[in-house]
Amino acid sequence: MLSEFDLIKRYFHRQYPSDPRFALGNGDDCALIAPTKGTQLAISSDMLVSGRHFFADADPAMLGHKCLAVNLSDLAAMGAKPLGFTLAIALPEADESWLAPFSEGMLRLADQYQCRLIGGDTTKGPLTISITIFGEIPPTTAMRRDAAKVDDDIWISGTLGDARLALAAYWNELALSDSAHLAAARRMHMPAPRIELGMALRGIAHAALDISDGLVGDLNHILTSSQVGASLDVDTLPAGPILTQQTQEIQRQFCLAGGDDYELCFTAPPELREAVLEAGRRSQTPVTRVGKILASRGLQIFDRAGNPLDLRPSSFDHFTSA
Amino acid sequence: MLSEFDLIKRYFHRQYPSDPRFALGNGDDCALIAPTKGTQLAISSDMLVSGRHFFADADPAMLGHKCLAVNLSDLAAMGAKPLGFTLAIALPEADESWLAPFSEGMLRLADQYQCRLIGGDTTKGPLTISITIFGEIPPTTAMRRDAAKVDDDIWISGTLGDARLALAAYWNELALSDSAHLAAARRMHMPAPRIELGMALRGIAHAALDISDGLVGDLNHILTSSQVGASLDVDTLPAGPILTQQTQEIQRQFCLAGGDDYELCFTAPPELREAVLEAGRRSQTPVTRVGKILASRGLQIFDRAGNPLDLRPSSFDHFTSA
Repeated sequence: MLSEFDLIKRYFHRQYPSDPRFALGNGDDCALIAPTKGTQLAISSDMLVSGRHFFADADPAMLGHKCLAVNLSDLAAMGAKPLGFTLAIALPEADESWLAPFSEGMLRLADQYQCRLIGGDTTKGPLTISITIFGEIPPTTAMRRDAAKVDDDIWISGTLGDARLALAAYWNELALSDSAHLAAARRMHMPAPRIELGMALRGIAHAALDISDGLVGDLNHILTSSQVGASLDVDTLPAGPILTQQTQEIQRQFCLAGGDDYELCFTAPPELREAVLEAGRRSQTPVTRVGKILASRGLQIFDRAGNPLDLRPSSFDHFTSA
Repeated sequence: MLSEFDLIKRYFHRQYPSDPRFALGNGDDCALIAPTKGTQLAISSDMLVSGRHFFADADPAMLGHKCLAVNLSDLAAMGAKPLGFTLAIALPEADESWLAPFSEGMLRLADQYQCRLIGGDTTKGPLTISITIFGEIPPTTAMRRDAAKVDDDIWISGTLGDARLALAAYWNELALSDSAHLAAARRMHMPAPRIELGMALRGIAHAALDISDGLVGDLNHILTSSQVGASLDVDTLPAGPILTQQTQEIQRQFCLAGGDDYELCFTAPPELREAVLEAGRRSQTPVTRVGKILASRGLQIFDRAGNPLDLRPSSFDHFTSA
C-alpha cells in the first residue's frame, strides 16, 4: 500500500530549478521563502469539500485544476504574481487512479503560472482540499476592496453565468443539449484565473475582487468596504457563450447571481478607460464596462431602457443557504 | 442563523495594533504581509480531521489550542519566530457553543506568541481544520533536517510518551487512575510548542525537527536527509511524569514510538554542550542528551548497560496504519 511519504513523492513532488527566493522546499518542518526585495506577499486560503464545492465523482484532473484556480483567482483580484502554494489534503484512501490525474491537473496549472508547490500535509479523511497560496506584489499597488471611488466605472472580465447554467442543468432546473451542458460544465470545472489581467491593472484599477459567489453579492463587498453605492446596467453584463442561448430572464439572473464565475469585478476612474481596455488587450482578456460607483449607498440595477429592476438575488452563503 | 460573515466576525476577528509588516489583514481576497528586512519566511501547513487526529467530542478549547500548537511546533523546529497564520475550517454546522471555546483556545495561544490570524476560509462539511503558519527567520540560521553532522549529540526537549499513554488508556491497552489519565490527556491535547527553545538554538543546533509521529520514525527523517546514522541510549530518554509510573518496557516503548509528543529532537556539536544547556535555561525548557550521530548508517538503540535493543517500533503513517 502507498505510504504517506511515497504518495507525496510520487504525486506532489516537482524538481524545480534553483531560485534564491526558495531557500528550502518540500520535506522539512517548514518551507523557507525570501520574497523579492521591494515586494509584499499576498496570501489567500480556500478549502474545498466533497459534496459541497464539487461532486464526489468529479473528474480528478478538472478538480485539481479548479482547486488551484480558485486560489490563483484571489491573487489575480489583488494584482499579485503567483509565487507558491501549500496543499493540505484529506483522502478517504490513497487511490492512485485518482491521485495521478488530480495532481497532474493541479500541477499543470501551477506550472503555467510558475507557481511552486512548496509544502503541505496529507491525511486520511473525507475528501477535503485546502490550499494556501502566495503571490508577490509591489507595495501600494494591491487592488483592495475598500478602494472604490465615487464616479469609478465598474468593469467585469470575461463572461458570467455559464457555470451557474451548468449547475442548473445538473439540478434539472432547465434542460440543456449534451454539447451545451458539456461546454457549460467546462466553464464550471475549469475556470481561468485572470492573473495576467490582474497584474496589468496595477496602478489603473482602484478596487477589485474575484466573483465567486455571484456578482451582486460580491460587488456588495466592495460597496460596503468602500462606503459607496453603485448602479449596474444589467443588459451590458457579459453573458457566457452558452448562457446567451437562454431567455433574457435567465441570462440576467445567472449573470447577476451566478456563482463560480471566477471573473474579476473591478473599478477604475473614467479617465483611465483607454488604459483599462489596453490592459485587457495586453492580457488577452475581454473587459466590459457595466456600471458606475455612486455616492448614495446601495446597489441599483437598471435595464437597457433605464428602468429599475427589482431583482434581489442573494449571494451564496455556506451556512445560511440549504 | 449565523452567516459565514457573522461567524468569522464574531469568532475569528481580532483587532490588532498597527504593524508595518501587516499591510492588510482579514476581509479582502488576500492578506498582505511584508516580512522584516533580512528575514526569510518559514511556512508550514497541517490538516486535522475529526475522528483521525482528534475525537469528534474533543473539548473545543483544547482542540483550538492543539491545532495551532502543532503548527507552531513546526516553526519551533526550524528556529522561526511566529508571525501569522491562516485558518481554513469545515464545520458540520455553525454551532456557537462549540465555536466560542474553539476560537478562544486557538487565539489565546496565538496571542501568547504574537501570531496573527491573517485570513482563511470557513465552509460547511465534516469537521476539518487546516492551518498554514508563517514565521520569520534570519537567512542561514534555520535548523534543517539535512544538517546533522557525524559526532553531533542528539538532544530532546521536555519529556516523551505521556500523550501516547493517554491514547493507550483511551484504547484500554492499559488502566490508569482518573487523575493520571486526566494529566496524560492534558499532555496529548495541550502540547506546548517549543518556540523559545527553537529560537534560542539558532546558530547552535545543526539539525532539528519536532516529534509528532514518534521519536524513532522522526529521528530517521534526520538520519536519511543528513545521510548519517545514530545511536540512542534508551534509558536516558526523558519519560513524561505520568509515564514514569509505568513499567520499564512501556516507558521505553512509548518514549521511542509515542507520537503526539511535539517536543524538539535536535543535534548539536559536542563542543557546544554548554551552549545547548544555556539555551534550555534561557527558554525555560528542559533539554536532555540522548545519543550520538554516527557515520555508519542506521539507528542503533542501547540500554544503560550498553546492550543493543531489538526494538523496531514503526512510526505512524496515515495511509498504511489502521
